[in-house]
Amino acid sequence: MPLSWNRHGKSGIRLVKVRRPEGGEEGETHGLVDLTIDVQLEGAFEPVYVDGENTGCLATDTMKNTVYALARHDPIDHVESFGLRLAEHFVGRPLVERVRIAATEQRWERVSSGRGPHPHAFVQPGGEQWTALVVRDRTGSSTVTSGLTNLVLLKTAHSAFSGFPRDEFTTLPYTEDRVLATSVTASWTYRAETTDFSARDRIREALLETFAAHDSRSVQHTLYAMGEAALSASADAAEITLAMPNRHHLLVDLAPFGLDNPNVVFVATDRPFGLIEATVRR
Amino acid sequence: MPLSWNRHGKSGIRLVKVRRPEGGEEGETHGLVDLTIDVQLEGAFEPVYVDGENTGCLATDTMKNTVYALARHDPIDHVESFGLRLAEHFVGRPLVERVRIAATEQRWERVSSGRGPHPHAFVQPGGEQWTALVVRDRTGSSTVTSGLTNLVLLKTAHSAFSGFPRDEFTTLPYTEDRVLATSVTASWTYRAETTDFSARDRIREALLETFAAHDSRSVQHTLYAMGEAALSASADAAEITLAMPNRHHLLVDLAPFGLDNPNVVFVATDRPFGLIEATVRR
Amino acid sequence: MPLSWNRHGKSGIRLVKVRRPEGGEEGETHGLVDLTIDVQLEGAFEPVYVDGENTGCLATDTMKNTVYALARHDPIDHVESFGLRLAEHFVGRPLVERVRIAATEQRWERVSSGRGPHPHAFVQPGGEQWTALVVRDRTGSSTVTSGLTNLVLLKTAHSAFSGFPRDEFTTLPYTEDRVLATSVTASWTYRAETTDFSARDRIREALLETFAAHDSRSVQHTLYAMGEAALSASADAAEITLAMPNRHHLLVDLAPFGLDNPNVVFVATDRPFGLIEATVRR
Amino acid sequence: MPLSWNRHGKSGIRLVKVRRPEGGEEGETHGLVDLTIDVQLEGAFEPVYVDGENTGCLATDTMKNTVYALARHDPIDHVESFGLRLAEHFVGRPLVERVRIAATEQRWERVSSGRGPHPHAFVQPGGEQWTALVVRDRTGSSTVTSGLTNLVLLKTAHSAFSGFPRDEFTTLPYTEDRVLATSVTASWTYRAETTDFSARDRIREALLETFAAHDSRSVQHTLYAMGEAALSASADAAEITLAMPNRHHLLVDLAPFGLDNPNVVFVATDRPFGLIEATVRR
Repeated sequence: MPLSWNRHGKSGIRLVKVRRPEGGEEGETHGLVDLTIDVQLEGAFEPVYVDGENTGCLATDTMKNTVYALARHDPIDHVESFGLRLAEHFVGRPLVERVRIAATEQRWERVSSGRGPHPHAFVQPGGEQWTALVVRDRTGSSTVTSGLTNLVLLKTAHSAFSGFPRDEFTTLPYTEDRVLATSVTASWTYRAETTDFSARDRIREALLETFAAHDSRSVQHTLYAMGEAALSASADAAEITLAMPNRHHLLVDLAPFGLDNPNVVFVATDRPFGLIEATVRR
Repeated sequence: MPLSWNRHGKSGIRLVKVRRPEGGEEGETHGLVDLTIDVQLEGAFEPVYVDGENTGCLATDTMKNTVYALARHDPIDHVESFGLRLAEHFVGRPLVERVRIAATEQRWERVSSGRGPHPHAFVQPGGEQWTALVVRDRTGSSTVTSGLTNLVLLKTAHSAFSGFPRDEFTTLPYTEDRVLATSVTASWTYRAETTDFSARDRIREALLETFAAHDSRSVQHTLYAMGEAALSASADAAEITLAMPNRHHLLVDLAPFGLDNPNVVFVATDRPFGLIEATVRR
Repeated sequence: MPLSWNRHGKSGIRLVKVRRPEGGEEGETHGLVDLTIDVQLEGAFEPVYVDGENTGCLATDTMKNTVYALARHDPIDHVESFGLRLAEHFVGRPLVERVRIAATEQRWERVSSGRGPHPHAFVQPGGEQWTALVVRDRTGSSTVTSGLTNLVLLKTAHSAFSGFPRDEFTTLPYTEDRVLATSVTASWTYRAETTDFSARDRIREALLETFAAHDSRSVQHTLYAMGEAALSASADAAEITLAMPNRHHLLVDLAPFGLDNPNVVFVATDRPFGLIEATVRR
Repeated sequence: MPLSWNRHGKSGIRLVKVRRPEGGEEGETHGLVDLTIDVQLEGAFEPVYVDGENTGCLATDTMKNTVYALARHDPIDHVESFGLRLAEHFVGRPLVERVRIAATEQRWERVSSGRGPHPHAFVQPGGEQWTALVVRDRTGSSTVTSGLTNLVLLKTAHSAFSGFPRDEFTTLPYTEDRVLATSVTASWTYRAETTDFSARDRIREALLETFAAHDSRSVQHTLYAMGEAALSASADAAEITLAMPNRHHLLVDLAPFGLDNPNVVFVATDRPFGLIEATVRR
C-alpha cells in the first residue's frame, strides 16, 4: 500500500539562551530568550517507512543537537530569523522536500524596582495566582493565611552551588555560576489581631527584590533570605512558608560539535526537579 | 467501624464580581474580582455517612448558592475578609465544628494605553506566549507566520448580543449589556519580502486597544474590528487569522434568595464555549 | 478589508446519555455514552463580522441546545451516525455552507465481578495510578501508606439524595434517582508489623463492588460503605481515607423544546464539584 | 529569625525498570514497572539555609542517582518495599531526621490477543479516547473520519534504530535493542458509501497486534506496518493517518557507581520527543 504523506521531526526542544555581552563584566546586563521548538521534515522518506532502510533517515536526536549548536552563535534577536536559519540548514539535507520550524516563546520581563530594571533577574508573567485560607472553629477565633503561587523567577548571575558532600552516588560538579529558576509558592499566617489584609504587595516586592539581589549559595540559602525579607516587610505576618522547586537549567554540552558553551545555551527541564521548602518565623 | 474524620464541601466555585459605582453612569470605572472558592465543613456528620440520614447534611449546592448570594453586597475588597464572612456564616450551621474557606484569585490588570488605564477593559497577565512558524520548501521561498496565543481579555461594558435568529431550539435571551471575555490567538503572515519581524508589539497593541474601545454587537463583530486594526498597524502583515473562544460569564440568578443582580455577580464557565474564528486580508 | 474565511460554533459540549430499555424495570441493563462535541459552521456570515448585523447569526447557545434535543431520541449507537444527523440539521440553516461535527468519546466499561458485568455500574479506564508513601524517622519504625487515585466510577441507578435541610439558600430539589459519578482517591495505612504489601487488589475490588451494589442515599453514605468494605477485605489495613469528588451530571431541561427527559440526557460538569472525604478506622 | 521547619528533596524522578530473566533468552517474558518517585528529607539543615553552608547539604541530584542505582538490583516486586529500602538508605545520612519517599505507579497491562498475553509488549490503560469527525458541505456528500487517540504502547524487545546518517551534529549511537514507547493517534477516512461505522475494534486490534509483533527498525517502520495492517483489517477504511510520538526511554548510565545496566534501568522523558506521522492509502 502506498505511503501518501509522511513527516518526522523533533518536538518540544527546550532552548534557553542567555545573551551575555562579549567580554562581559560583573554587573553587565544579560538578555534572555526562552523557546520551545519543533522541527519537522517532509520528503522522499518512503524507504525508511516501507523497508526499514535508515540510510536516509535524519535522526530526530540530530535535529535537537543542531538547534542547540546553531543557537550558540545566533543572537536570536527575532525568533523568526533563527527559524529561517534552521529551515535553511535542514532543507539542504538528503531527501528533504519541506521543512517546518515552529517556535513558541515563553516571555520573561526584568524584575523591576525603585532602582530600575534589574540586569540579570527576570520574572515570567503568567499564571501567578493569589491565595487565601480562612479556618474557623466553632469555638475560638479564626486563622487567616494568605499567599501567592506560581511566581516564576530566574536569575542568570550570582547563583552558585558548591561545597556539598560527595558520596558514592554523587556526580554533580560544583559550580560557582549557574542559572537559577524557580516557581515560588508562599503563604504567610497573619497575627490573630490583624484586620488589615493588605500585606501582599509588600511581601511580593520583598520576595522579588531579595531573589534578584541575593548572592545565592543554594536554593535553600536564597529561600531563607526571601522569607526573612518578607517578614521584615510586613509586621502583620507571623510566619511564612516558602516552597521553591528548582527548575533546572542544564548547560548543553556542545563540545562534540567543536563549540564552547560559556554559560550561554541551556536546556530547561521539567522533571525531575529539586524541591526546597521551609518556614521562617518571626 | 468508626468514622474517625470527615469533611464535605463544594470546591471550584467560580465567582466573578464586577464592582460598579452606585448609580453608575456611562464611562465610570468598573472593578473586577475573579475567584475560585472551596468551602469545606467538618463536624458531627456521622449519621450522614453511617446511616444515610441526611437531615443534618448541608447540601454542597447550598454552599455554592450561599457564596453567590453573600457576594452580591460584599465589596470583596480583600478576599480574606470575604472568607471570614463566609466562615462566620457556615460555622453557625447545625453539626458544624470547623469551616475552611480557601480562595484563589485570578489576577486582572486594566488594559492600558497612551490614554491611561481603561475604565472597563482588562487583561489577565498569564500564559501569553508568542509563536512563530517558518515553512521552507526545497524550491521556492519561505513563508513566515508569527502570532501570539492565550492573550486573555475581558470587558464589562460595551458588549451586546441581540437580534440573532430564534428557532425551535433557541432559549438565549437578547442582551444589550454582558461581560465579554476571551483568550485571543492571533497569527499573521508576513509579506514575502519582509526582513524585519518586529511587528508583534504594534499588532498586539492594536488588538488590545480595539478590544477595549469597540462597541461590540457580537464576538464576530469585535474580532473583525481587531483584525482590521492589526493589519492597519503593520504594513508587513499580509493577512491575520484570529481565534476567539467566548469564555462565557453567566449572570447568576439570585431571585430565589430575594436579591437582584444588576450585572454584578457572574459565574465563569469553561465548557462549553463559543469559538469564533476568521481571517482578514489586506 | 475582506473577510477571507470565517467559522463559528460551540466547542466542548458535554453530553452523557443513559440508554434505558423502554418500559424499563428494576434491574434491567443500562447503556452509557459519554461525548464531548464541537459544532462548527462556515458560510456567508460576512454581515455578522463586518457590520455587527446578527439576523443571520445562529447563536452558539442554540447549537448546544440542538445537540441535547437531538440526543433525546437518537440511540447514538455509533457516534458517526449521530454526527451525520447533526450535520444534516445544521447544513439546512441560512447562510451555512459547511458543517463540521467533531466528537470525542470518553470510554466506559462495565464494572465486572464474579457475578459478571454489572447492569448499571461503570468504570472509566484511564489515568488510574497506584500510590505508596513511606515515612521513616531516624528513631522509631516506618509507616507505610498505600493507595490508588483517579479510579473513575459512575452508576445510573440506586443513587438518591434527599431529606437534606433546606435553608434560605437551598434550591436543589430532592431526588430519588440520579447519576452518581466520582473519581476515587483512596489511601490506607498498613499495620506496623506488615511485610506483605499485596492488599491493593483486594481493596480495589471491594471498592468497586461496593460502589456498584450500594443503595446510595448520598456520596457520604456510599463512601462509608466502601471504606468499611475495604477494611473488611484486608486485615493488614489499619485505616482507610477516601476522597470522592461528586462529578455532577445535571439533567438537561428539554421542556422548552417540547421534550421530556426521564433521566436520559445529562450534561457532565467539571466545576464546581462536591468533595466528600472521610477516614474509616478498624 | 528562626527556621522552624525545612525539607528538601528531589521530586518527579521517572524510573522505568524492565525485569528480564537472568540469562534471558529470545522470547522470554519481561516484566515492567513504571514509577515516579519523590524523595524528601527533613533534618538539622539550618546552616544550609541560614549561612549558605553546604557541607551537610545532600544534593538532590545525588538523591536521583541513588534511586537509579538502588533500582538496578532491587526487583521492585512491591513499590512499598523499594520505598522502605530507599528510606533506610537516606535516614542514615548526616543531619537527616525524617525521610519521606512517595511513589506513583503508572500501570501497564500486557497486550493480549487470541494467542494470550504478549511477553514483551504492553498497553497503558488510561486516557484513550475515540474520535469522530463529520464534514458536510451544502452541496455534495459528507465525509466521515474516525479515530482513536492516546493509545499508549511500549515494547521491551524487537526494537532497533541504527544505520541512520551521521553528520557533524550526530551523537546518538546505533542500537539494536531499545525500549520503544509511543502514544498512538490514528484516524481513518471511511469510503463514501459506508453506512456501518463499526471498524474501530478491528482496526484497534490490528494496531496493537502489529505493534507487539513487529520487528522494528524505527518508529517509521513500525508505523507503516501498523497502518498497512489497519487497512487490511477493515475494507471500509480508505486511508489511515497515524501520529506516533517517540516517548524516549533513555538508558541510565550507572557506570559512575560501578554498576552495569544491561537494558534494565531507564529514565522516561517527556520532552523533547520524536514525532513520526504518515498516511497510508489503500
